[in-house]
Amino acid sequence: MMLEEKTRHAIEQLLYEWARTVDEDRLEDLAALLTEDARYKVISRFNTDRNLPAAVIDCRSRGQLLDRIKSLRVANIYEKHFYRHLLSGVQVIGGEGPPGGEVWEVRANYVLVRTMEHDGSISVYSSGQHQDSVVFEDSVPRFRSRVVVYDSRIIDTVLVIPI
Amino acid sequence: MMLEEKTRHAIEQLLYEWARTVDEDRLEDLAALLTEDARYKVISRFNTDRNLPAAVIDCRSRGQLLDRIKSLRVANIYEKHFYRHLLSGVQVIGGEGPPGGEVWEVRANYVLVRTMEHDGSISVYSSGQHQDSVVFEDSVPRFRSRVVVYDSRIIDTVLVIPI
Amino acid sequence: MMLEEKTRHAIEQLLYEWARTVDEDRLEDLAALLTEDARYKVISRFNTDRNLPAAVIDCRSRGQLLDRIKSLRVANIYEKHFYRHLLSGVQVIGGEGPPGGEVWEVRANYVLVRTMEHDGSISVYSSGQHQDSVVFEDSVPRFRSRVVVYDSRIIDTVLVIPI
Repeated sequence: MMLEEKTRHAIEQLLYEWARTVDEDRLEDLAALLTEDARYKVISRFNTDRNLPAAVIDCRSRGQLLDRIKSLRVANIYEKHFYRHLLSGVQVIGGEGPPGGEVWEVRANYVLVRTMEHDGSISVYSSGQHQDSVVFEDSVPRFRSRVVVYDSRIIDTVLVIPI
Repeated sequence: MMLEEKTRHAIEQLLYEWARTVDEDRLEDLAALLTEDARYKVISRFNTDRNLPAAVIDCRSRGQLLDRIKSLRVANIYEKHFYRHLLSGVQVIGGEGPPGGEVWEVRANYVLVRTMEHDGSISVYSSGQHQDSVVFEDSVPRFRSRVVVYDSRIIDTVLVIPI
Repeated sequence: MMLEEKTRHAIEQLLYEWARTVDEDRLEDLAALLTEDARYKVISRFNTDRNLPAAVIDCRSRGQLLDRIKSLRVANIYEKHFYRHLLSGVQVIGGEGPPGGEVWEVRANYVLVRTMEHDGSISVYSSGQHQDSVVFEDSVPRFRSRVVVYDSRIIDTVLVIPI
């Protein structure tokens, strides 16, 4: 794999952009960061290690994620809260395909801090690893697949907002 | 905006330098990271979202921040503690002005872990976003404005050390 | 010190690689990230500030760390748990020696989130600073010394897995 600094940087910024988009509550903008047929999956480390398929979120396209966001905006009842993403250790660990058409394999650690609006309580809501496949479409980096593997089998209350 | 890798890197290191300066308790050195007339403000997300002006810290110059640090050193009574900054997702989202004289708009997430000296207890003390304007003075990057928007309306006990 | 972007990047990736190696439980692979005679030490901020020598881990070679990992695999009894490393603010603060043979001084903040397997509980287990000396052996970056200075004097239960 030949990874230019420019490419690596663009991939890193894509990951940061997703985090900021969620944290600034501009969830509808996530669609532009995914390819049309992207997979977005949130699954436990426990199930991943055992090849068990059950995931708490498993979207097979950009549109499916937008549906979920729509329902979060208009239908779901939940206590208002904010996320704050910390990403670390972004590593491009592989790349396959012709120059310009590579699929880049990317790993990064995350910790998600959640703040509840009503009482301001802060907690580490989730930690885990991003396992991403990134492609460039007309020079724009997008996730073709984004798998969030979270460390704990327990999710506090409910997972509403995408990680 | 034309952002060279060298410039981006220097900006990123400025943010890291601030964090390390605070965490290593060399607070007086923060002055060198600010322009003479820099704004340093710590304000809640709640107030920011509603355009409410009240901030817990609002310094209008380098000197004013140094005054605050002086009082922290000689006058304030508080339980000794340490900060540990985690920054993530440093993004230069804009830049305006003539080449060399740009004002760069920068965003980054932070989480602040606090350790109390007396019992060693560790907690996530604050999370939020850095909203910075950075300029270069004689090739040295400095904050012209540093706004810390913290997520929770509640601050545990008291905010003594700058974030 | 003349630090090329390529060198800086390789150093940063070395730190990320260590973190991912631990978090993915491939501890035996840590050896390849150290020089043969590397020092790996985990010591409190309290002791560091007072020049007190006691450390909770103090390995004087790659082999000694591997011994420790071996005992963790076959002898130690402890509750199963996972780490998730967050690193931030990687800074190369010095470099001495002839071109190609420099010893690079590196600092980075870390926060370690621990997840217990049995009940999925998540907590901030440790925070602190990495104080590293990095050299290149045949163009491969390795730690010649890795000192982990943790902020809290209290370690919850026991430190089993290297930080």
